[in-house]
Amino acid sequence: MSNPLAGIPTQESEVRSLDRAHVFHSWSAQAKIDPLPIASAQGSYFTDYEGNRYLDFSSQLVNVNIGYQHPRLIAAIQEYVAKLATIQPAFANDARSEAARLITELAGPSFRSVFFTNGGAEANENAIRMARLHTGRPKVLAAYRSYHGATHGVIGLTGDPRRWGTEPFTVPGIVHFWGPYPYRSAFYSQTPEQETERALQHLRDTIMVEGAGTIAAIILEPVVGTNGVLVPPPGYLAGVRQLCDEHGILLIADEVMAGFGRCGEWFAVHHWDVVPDLITFAKGVNSGYVPLGGVIVSDVVASTFDDRVYPGGLTYQGHPLACASAVASIEIFKDEKILENARFLGTDVIGPELEKIADKHPSVGEVRGLGVFWAVELVKDKTTREPLVPYNASGAAATPMNDFAAACKARGMWPMTHFNRTHVVPPCTTTEAEVREGLAILDEALDVADSFCDA
Amino acid sequence: MSNPLAGIPTQESEVRSLDRAHVFHSWSAQAKIDPLPIASAQGSYFTDYEGNRYLDFSSQLVNVNIGYQHPRLIAAIQEYVAKLATIQPAFANDARSEAARLITELAGPSFRSVFFTNGGAEANENAIRMARLHTGRPKVLAAYRSYHGATHGVIGLTGDPRRWGTEPFTVPGIVHFWGPYPYRSAFYSQTPEQETERALQHLRDTIMVEGAGTIAAIILEPVVGTNGVLVPPPGYLAGVRQLCDEHGILLIADEVMAGFGRCGEWFAVHHWDVVPDLITFAKGVNSGYVPLGGVIVSDVVASTFDDRVYPGGLTYQGHPLACASAVASIEIFKDEKILENARFLGTDVIGPELEKIADKHPSVGEVRGLGVFWAVELVKDKTTREPLVPYNASGAAATPMNDFAAACKARGMWPMTHFNRTHVVPPCTTTEAEVREGLAILDEALDVADSFCDA
Ligand SMILES: Cc1ncc(COP(=O)(O)O)c(C=O)c1O
Ligand SMILES: Cc1ncc(COP(=O)(O)O)c(C=O)c1O
Repeated sequence: MSNPLAGIPTQESEVRSLDRAHVFHSWSAQAKIDPLPIASAQGSYFTDYEGNRYLDFSSQLVNVNIGYQHPRLIAAIQEYVAKLATIQPAFANDARSEAARLITELAGPSFRSVFFTNGGAEANENAIRMARLHTGRPKVLAAYRSYHGATHGVIGLTGDPRRWGTEPFTVPGIVHFWGPYPYRSAFYSQTPEQETERALQHLRDTIMVEGAGTIAAIILEPVVGTNGVLVPPPGYLAGVRQLCDEHGILLIADEVMAGFGRCGEWFAVHHWDVVPDLITFAKGVNSGYVPLGGVIVSDVVASTFDDRVYPGGLTYQGHPLACASAVASIEIFKDEKILENARFLGTDVIGPELEKIADKHPSVGEVRGLGVFWAVELVKDKTTREPLVPYNASGAAATPMNDFAAACKARGMWPMTHFNRTHVVPPCTTTEAEVREGLAILDEALDVADSFCDA
Repeated sequence: MSNPLAGIPTQESEVRSLDRAHVFHSWSAQAKIDPLPIASAQGSYFTDYEGNRYLDFSSQLVNVNIGYQHPRLIAAIQEYVAKLATIQPAFANDARSEAARLITELAGPSFRSVFFTNGGAEANENAIRMARLHTGRPKVLAAYRSYHGATHGVIGLTGDPRRWGTEPFTVPGIVHFWGPYPYRSAFYSQTPEQETERALQHLRDTIMVEGAGTIAAIILEPVVGTNGVLVPPPGYLAGVRQLCDEHGILLIADEVMAGFGRCGEWFAVHHWDVVPDLITFAKGVNSGYVPLGGVIVSDVVASTFDDRVYPGGLTYQGHPLACASAVASIEIFKDEKILENARFLGTDVIGPELEKIADKHPSVGEVRGLGVFWAVELVKDKTTREPLVPYNASGAAATPMNDFAAACKARGMWPMTHFNRTHVVPPCTTTEAEVREGLAILDEALDVADSFCDA
């Protein structure tokens, strides 16, 4: 019997031509893309078929928190798959039990259980369903400048242009509000403290006019990810928690991107000591080595479904191999002090170095972040803060960002750009030397961005 | 450094207590369930911690088509994970390229590409989005007695009670129609031919009153799965295809359960030589060893998105390890003639044996199916056809089915029961002897069902 993987192509040309012929890519016009074939990856680097090696300052989709091909995680997957690749959700499974115990424990004492899913979208789908059934209320408040996934239930929550293509086929009952963003305040604030106060007043007003008694939940990314690494100003998250408590509204923290090390904590909310009612996760839980996501359910919400049937599920829920890889990844994070490394990189390396870079480059309007979760916001002019490219720019309008990204890649660093920003989001396991290497490339490539600034 | 899987419990009591404490189970009231911990599985059997071995006549959730722990598939996963566990969707990847090529080829010459997802729900989410954008029309027609997944976009398509708990938060624009079901005809038909004719007339009338120009797609399970293994009567699927062609409506075949061997074909539609515009799949593609699903896109629909951005995606789309396991599973199916085995079991073993069982047992109203996809419909009375338990029965009302299922399990066979039916859906790799063993148990256990029949 031959090796059943023997048909997988080994030549770049074939990988590329089959991709172009048969892979329907997300968020793209299929005839206008030319995806780069990747041959291998290790640690913080991936390599194409021509041997070009890239330091990954994107962690893929900000999910490879443990880095590529972590040897202990790979070995754990090999070990567990030999035992039991899959069993359906209605049974109990050793890896699922332990993953649920560990994740609940990491979330904190008010949490009871985990509803596992395959990814982030399904996690948010189920979180809003739980919130509606628990409260008996219809509406969900979500922020502009957010991403919560692409299935119909949660693309409607999403507050960025990815929602537009699906409307009006999103679920009813979603209301958007504005979150804090001191650098571009919707509230004309002059200080972070004022931004907190005014953003909370806006949220309070929104609750008032929508009707508190109609609102099941407020969902937010504790640190907004793709839409800007928007770190909440002091007191904001606590203020949202308090508003929720006042009005019997549940707080859902979407920690799909912010959780599991990205902010240097197991969960971003820990950074501000705020306790949500539901936490959704995916990505960093096992760095996507096997698809996994889920909802961490507080005791209060879980008890609603003790005697009442919860109407939701999926075939691969609590997938044994995925759960085993989450158990292994969490243990490796603990053993190898990976959270500590992410914190150290943020406070001692990325933060201070980005400040220096900001001072040097006319195109850098603001740098912000924590852990290994940073944004560099590019502008035409530091005074007017006009974005280097317009909101949702594409084609020629996006040239400054495209040229900047190309300059990074040409120097061996893969950036994560979005609108007028580049994010510094390497794996949590990246070494100090690697981060400095990437920041040096960033520094050089920003000369390209500078050239597009107003004179 | 210790083994990062060392914390996974080894004792049944701990697996069970952690599950009860921390795993939030799907479709359940959490305090009312007691999930059985499974210790191991091999081939067509799984085994609990007390050493009870069960012949799996459910293939878990009708997805373990290749059986448990197929050694070549396990080895392939171990081999590929050592190479590259994950890379994001925007790159090209060897396993993803080859999986897309293979799956497109299996679907047939009118298909071009694959939009990969993590599971069946996300596949249907994206299929209806593609159909709406391709046609520019809002509505989707879906059948009663169907299941299409649990995210908000597709639970609305679902025509069974699992939808109820999510309403009214499903996406707008979904209309339900009645499909053919000769044994319980909605159209008072006397013959399968009449059922085809009348079901098509009903669909034609529904299109007329809803307005053909408002309908983007008709989605259906070519063989309805969980809701009854409803095999379409001759000419029905071809008739639906023709109605779609007449009115510019796309036909979406949900082959999540019916595909990849379940019907003895790569895709159920091949059995009737009908060509849909979009095919959705999951489950059997790799037997769930790693979560995977997708949409197979015809050339016609794909070309709509050549120059126009498709608005959808997910982090783990085209997951390399999942795609590698699909490549391996498909090659193993070919090498080991697994489709041929499924066909043989259907025509030579399960079909004829179930007929004998039907003759013997007053509780058996009808048997129907093909391949390894069969239903035994249980009734109180063969003449009135009154179901052995009411639609969606639970608690005491479901006693006859529960007692029947318990009788199967006590004898070492795990049945898949749903409403007043038991499905015979073993892995496609099950041997003739194993199937006969399971059918003998079924025969015995049906005495329990018989005891609930009207005298
Ligand atoms: C904050 C956030 N929520 C949800 C999602 C959706 O997760 P997935 O792509 O796994 O469906 C993402 C993905 O980027 C995300 O960043
Ligand atoms: C026909 C059909 N479609 C869709 C689904 C949903 O798939 P998943 O559970 O992977 O989301 C199922 C699951 O049972 C199914 O049987």
